Amino acid sequence: MNNAEVIGAVAAVLTTGSFLPQAYKVLRTRETAAISLVMYSMFTAGVTLWLVFGLYTMQWSIIIANAVTVVLAGLILTIKVRAVLRTTRE
Amino acid sequence: MNNAEVIGAVAAVLTTGSFLPQAYKVLRTRETAAISLVMYSMFTAGVTLWLVFGLYTMQWSIIIANAVTVVLAGLILTIKVRAVLRTTRE
Repeated sequence: MNNAEVIGAVAAVLTTGSFLPQAYKVLRTRETAAISLVMYSMFTAGVTLWLVFGLYTMQWSIIIANAVTVVLAGLILTIKVRAVLRTTRE
Repeated sequence: MNNAEVIGAVAAVLTTGSFLPQAYKVLRTRETAAISLVMYSMFTAGVTLWLVFGLYTMQWSIIIANAVTVVLAGLILTIKVRAVLRTTRE
């Protein structure tokens, strides 16, 4: 790996790693009241585009960091949308 | 701008934009009880390294997205550390 790849790999571990406990908590408790639907939709769309950017430019640290995050963020967003729909129906 | 630069620019607006309301709320209220010191330190270090990665590889969308986020995350981390130090002294 060259210098940029090492920096990117460590950055990926840190930013994706810092997201894991929050994701684990939401997935375990299904508690999404504190999450803003608009902001989380923006975040998930943004992470998806960073993944596309990484694939487009073939940068592994960007691909792996955002692939892990997009799966977790997508699951959390699904739980949030279901909760919003349930509340709307009541 | 080429395709990758457009995708990166939109991704940057979305992920940094999704972070702004939370940052604004913490900076306005100084309420950091819900923030984990360990996780937020990891996040700030990670964003700093993504900024270094962007500068190293001269990718503007990565530089700008992470430069904005690192300033806000650094301010929030400072507020959190001060709150922890105050609690420790009491």
